[in-house]
Amino acid sequence: MRRIIDMDKKITLAHGNGGSLMHELIEVLRLSLSNNILNELADAAELHIRKNRIAFSTDSYVIKPLFFPGGDIGKLSVCGTVNDVSMKGAVPLFISLSFIIEEGFEMVNLEKIVQSIKKAANKAKVQVVTGDIKVVEKGAADKIFINTAGIGVIDYPGRVGAKAKPNDVIIINGTIADHGIAILNARENLKFKSSIKSDCCNLNFVIKKCLRASKNIHVMRDPTRGGLATALNEIASASNLGIEIYEKDIPIKPAVRNLCDVLGFDPLYVANEGKFICFVNKKDAKKVKKAIGPSAQIIGKVISAHKKEVYLKTKIASSRILTMLETDQLPRIC
Amino acid sequence: MRRIIDMDKKITLAHGNGGSLMHELIEVLRLSLSNNILNELADAAELHIRKNRIAFSTDSYVIKPLFFPGGDIGKLSVCGTVNDVSMKGAVPLFISLSFIIEEGFEMVNLEKIVQSIKKAANKAKVQVVTGDIKVVEKGAADKIFINTAGIGVIDYPGRVGAKAKPNDVIIINGTIADHGIAILNARENLKFKSSIKSDCCNLNFVIKKCLRASKNIHVMRDPTRGGLATALNEIASASNLGIEIYEKDIPIKPAVRNLCDVLGFDPLYVANEGKFICFVNKKDAKKVKKAIGPSAQIIGKVISAHKKEVYLKTKIASSRILTMLETDQLPRIC
Repeated sequence: MRRIIDMDKKITLAHGNGGSLMHELIEVLRLSLSNNILNELADAAELHIRKNRIAFSTDSYVIKPLFFPGGDIGKLSVCGTVNDVSMKGAVPLFISLSFIIEEGFEMVNLEKIVQSIKKAANKAKVQVVTGDIKVVEKGAADKIFINTAGIGVIDYPGRVGAKAKPNDVIIINGTIADHGIAILNARENLKFKSSIKSDCCNLNFVIKKCLRASKNIHVMRDPTRGGLATALNEIASASNLGIEIYEKDIPIKPAVRNLCDVLGFDPLYVANEGKFICFVNKKDAKKVKKAIGPSAQIIGKVISAHKKEVYLKTKIASSRILTMLETDQLPRIC
Repeated sequence: MRRIIDMDKKITLAHGNGGSLMHELIEVLRLSLSNNILNELADAAELHIRKNRIAFSTDSYVIKPLFFPGGDIGKLSVCGTVNDVSMKGAVPLFISLSFIIEEGFEMVNLEKIVQSIKKAANKAKVQVVTGDIKVVEKGAADKIFINTAGIGVIDYPGRVGAKAKPNDVIIINGTIADHGIAILNARENLKFKSSIKSDCCNLNFVIKKCLRASKNIHVMRDPTRGGLATALNEIASASNLGIEIYEKDIPIKPAVRNLCDVLGFDPLYVANEGKFICFVNKKDAKKVKKAIGPSAQIIGKVISAHKKEVYLKTKIASSRILTMLETDQLPRIC
């Protein structure tokens, strides 16, 4: 951690990639704020306001390009925060909306983005209730950045937190790496003939079904920046337990896998925006899988051995450790 | 309003200055979102969650320079949102914290900003509970932008809203234009020998005293971007009433007034970050003034004539209309 607060150090892109450097930076901020509630800066918080349990989360969106197959910064800024709130076992109700806009940004694109926000908010049944607009001079920001914060109510009798339990089954709701690869394809104008789209969508309704199906869900997480491998590492670490996942069971679209191979990306580290992993007591795993629907897949389990480590059982029956994302794969992915 | 959504139009700095163009833009967004709750995008919202009344607000901070006499972007990002929540008659409890950082930003400055956030949050007795960090490449943002969102609980029996009532007395808690002039002085390196400091501070405790002193407070507003004149215009408009203020009673520090004169700024349009105006039933005005303390000043009243207009009674007993800020005085003031 010391290496981060060295006074001659500077922020690098890797401090924002969701991986290990970002986690160290968050830890520094957490210690600086001497804040016990702020257990994970990147996550939603569970608050107690009078007799209600409230989930509260925020994210800033700096994605590039602004419009991409499967979505745009407006849709992403609603879905991303709706999903973060949902991961606490909450029903998201309200979001705030704050724009930082570069002077000269085209009104027609702002209008498109706002229409997309409206559509996404309607679909997720959340209300945009408050906001802000800042305009900065040409060159002081890249087109437009959006921040949303979200509030939800938690009625779940259990506590969906950061810690899994031994023998928990790990379920994912569908294919990985779609978002990151779609963005890369759009950004770099790679012109791969490809139907790859971002998976960007709101997860609150499927989460609600899961919460109804089992009272024994311990952790939920949307593996965005840093991808599935990084999210699993966070959970193994926080739980002081090991995780084992099976390569053959991890759903990936063939086109996404091919593009990952060509470009040299490991899909396990590529961002998702419409996926979540659910850690549930073994006895309820089938019920939760059914609640999610046909795309759901059991991908692994929590083990008491190999504490704080994530193991991938490969297709050829070997085993390798998956560490947290270290180097920067893709900046401005969300 | 049409002129704003013309498809060939572009965002200008004036769309972010707190004045009339920003209000038009907000109105366009509000209509685009077809949102009834979102009555004023720039304001805090009052939400009903189960049996609790919750205030929710957000602001992004893009101030330049990051460090200035009387504060920095960290302190501002806590106080600004604490104050917005307080203006709804709420006790602010929790804030979120989201950074957009330019690659290459010095860690030592981030640490300074975080320390300042900590100090300001402790002083205001709010907890930073959730957050986010995004890093963008060199040139895609100007150093660092911060977003905070705030949640508070409203226990006030009345409703502090957007609408004043006829004969309400208008009270301000101290001198105007300190923040804007301090920023200008710092930014432009004007080297005026000056003790001018930003008034940036948390207002939640003085607001609490006011709320205890009277059950008849109708509107509270912190006149930030656009200054006192713009805030009064917003309230006159929303209330469909007139406002009359007295130049001789508006507190301004002599150094601030002098600098405004030299630079050609009207202090009534210059931003504040530690001031609020309170619209209260005439019979409770003295109690509220006393609750604020010796710096409080009665500056005007609400009248039934001259609907939606703000009149300044000058020192030479003439009268002039104060319109909303139109042109851009000072970009990136908060």
